[in-house]
Amino acid sequence: MTQIEMTPDERLAMEALDAARLVVGKGFRAEFTTQNKATGGRFDPVTQIDQATEEAMRSILRLGTHGIRGEEAEDEPGTTNQHWLIDPIDGTRAFMTGMPTFMTLLGLVGPQGPSLGYADQPILGERFAGNNQDAWLISAHGKRSINTRRHVSLDQAIAATTSPDIFETDAERSALSRLKQATLLMRYGGDAYSYCMLAMGQLDLVVETGLQPYDIWPLKPIIEGAGGVVLNWQGGQDFTGQVVAAGTQALAEEVLTLL
Amino acid sequence: MTQIEMTPDERLAMEALDAARLVVGKGFRAEFTTQNKATGGRFDPVTQIDQATEEAMRSILRLGTHGIRGEEAEDEPGTTNQHWLIDPIDGTRAFMTGMPTFMTLLGLVGPQGPSLGYADQPILGERFAGNNQDAWLISAHGKRSINTRRHVSLDQAIAATTSPDIFETDAERSALSRLKQATLLMRYGGDAYSYCMLAMGQLDLVVETGLQPYDIWPLKPIIEGAGGVVLNWQGGQDFTGQVVAAGTQALAEEVLTLL
Repeated sequence: MTQIEMTPDERLAMEALDAARLVVGKGFRAEFTTQNKATGGRFDPVTQIDQATEEAMRSILRLGTHGIRGEEAEDEPGTTNQHWLIDPIDGTRAFMTGMPTFMTLLGLVGPQGPSLGYADQPILGERFAGNNQDAWLISAHGKRSINTRRHVSLDQAIAATTSPDIFETDAERSALSRLKQATLLMRYGGDAYSYCMLAMGQLDLVVETGLQPYDIWPLKPIIEGAGGVVLNWQGGQDFTGQVVAAGTQALAEEVLTLL
Repeated sequence: MTQIEMTPDERLAMEALDAARLVVGKGFRAEFTTQNKATGGRFDPVTQIDQATEEAMRSILRLGTHGIRGEEAEDEPGTTNQHWLIDPIDGTRAFMTGMPTFMTLLGLVGPQGPSLGYADQPILGERFAGNNQDAWLISAHGKRSINTRRHVSLDQAIAATTSPDIFETDAERSALSRLKQATLLMRYGGDAYSYCMLAMGQLDLVVETGLQPYDIWPLKPIIEGAGGVVLNWQGGQDFTGQVVAAGTQALAEEVLTLL
C-alpha cells in the first residue's frame, strides 16, 4: 500500500458507499416491494431498495463535479469528462433471497475506461477497491493489498459463473460445457462477488454473458489492479455482454480458445 | 421464544459450534492443503480445515454421553441411543473459493430421527437452530424466531439448488427442467445456506440430489421447526440422496408431482 491519503474522488466514493450500506442494511431480509422489469414471462427483478440505494449514493456523488449514471435513474451531467457509474445492488436475486453475496458497485469512468472501481458487500462489511495498478480489501480488519493467483494451469483452474441459465444461445451453452470439461471446478451463484474472489486469488476464472456496462466497469480496476485481466469473448475491450475475467493474461488467452 | 434456559445437550452443541468457529475462522482464505476424495476424474475436495474443525467439535462433544458420527473420522460410541452427527464444512467448494456461504452442521439424532439441529456460518456469525417445534436465528443481534413463508403458489415460488451438475441422470435433469419451468426463479450455489434461507422465509423450495445423511439430518429440525417440511422425492422420510424441502406441506406436495 503506497497510498496513505485519499484523493477527493476516492473520499467521495467511500462516502457514497457508506451511504449505500445504511440503506441496504435496513432493507436486507426486510419487507420490500419487487417489480419485474422483464416482459414475456421472464423475471428481471428490481426492488425498492435498489432504487433507494442508488438515490442515497447520488445524493453524495452530486457534491462532486463528475456526471452520474446508474441502473435505476436518468443520467445526470457533470462538468468533467468523467462519470460515476452505479449498480446499487448487483445480484438483486441474491439480495431478494437473503444471501449476503450481492454487492454495491461504483466506478469512475472516463474516455479511456474506468480509473477507479469499488465493490462493497454491506452485510459482511467488505469493500474491494482498485485503480488498475493496485487493489485492496478494506474491512474491519483494515486495508490490505490483494492479488490474483499466479501460475495456475487450465486443468487446475477454479471457474465461476452466476448461473448456467445466462448462457442463452447454443453457442454459449457449448462454450460453458467446454469450459466445465477443461477446468477443475465450476462454481455458481456468485455475481460480482466471484470477480472479487478472483481478485483475491480464491478463484481463477469468471466467464459470463448478458452483462451490462454497470455490471463490469466498476470491477475492472479491481481485477486489473490485482494482476488479472478482463476481456470480451473475442479478446477485446468492447463489452457487449460476454465477459472473461482471469487471474493472468496467459490463463485468459487459454480460455479464449475454448469460447 | 418460550425457552430461556438451555438443556445440557443444547449447551454442549453451542460450545462445539463455538470451537468450530475458531478453527474455521483461522482457515478461511488462508493457505491449506486440499485432498481429492473422488476417483475417475471427479473432484470431491476435503481440506485439512474440514478435518481440524471436526476434531475440535469432537473434543467438546466427548464431554457428553452421546455417540459421535462425522464426515471425516470414525464413529465413536456413546452410552445413550442418540448420537451427534457432524458435517464440519458443508459446502467445501464455497469454503475453498472464499465464499462465506458454507456452514458447519451439527445434529442430535435418535431412533426417531433428529431432535436438535444447528447450521452455523462462522464468518457471518449466524447460527440457525431448531428442535422440530421451533427454529431460531442466533447472531450478534440476539436470538429470534424464524418461520417459513406461507401461502406461496408454485408459480411464485423461489427455488434453489446447489448446482445443476448434481442432477446426474436424465430423469433428474428432466425433473430440474420441469421445476425451473414451474417456479418464478431458480437460485444456485447455496449449499446448506439455502435451507436456512428457506427456514427464514427468503426462499420457498430447495430441491437436491446426491445428499448424504450428514448433509440433511442437522437441517431438518430447523426447517420443520420453522414450519417447513423435508421429504425425499417420493414423499417419504428415507433419505438416499434426493431431497425436497419446502416452506409448507402444500407446496411440497405440489412439487412432488413434478419430480
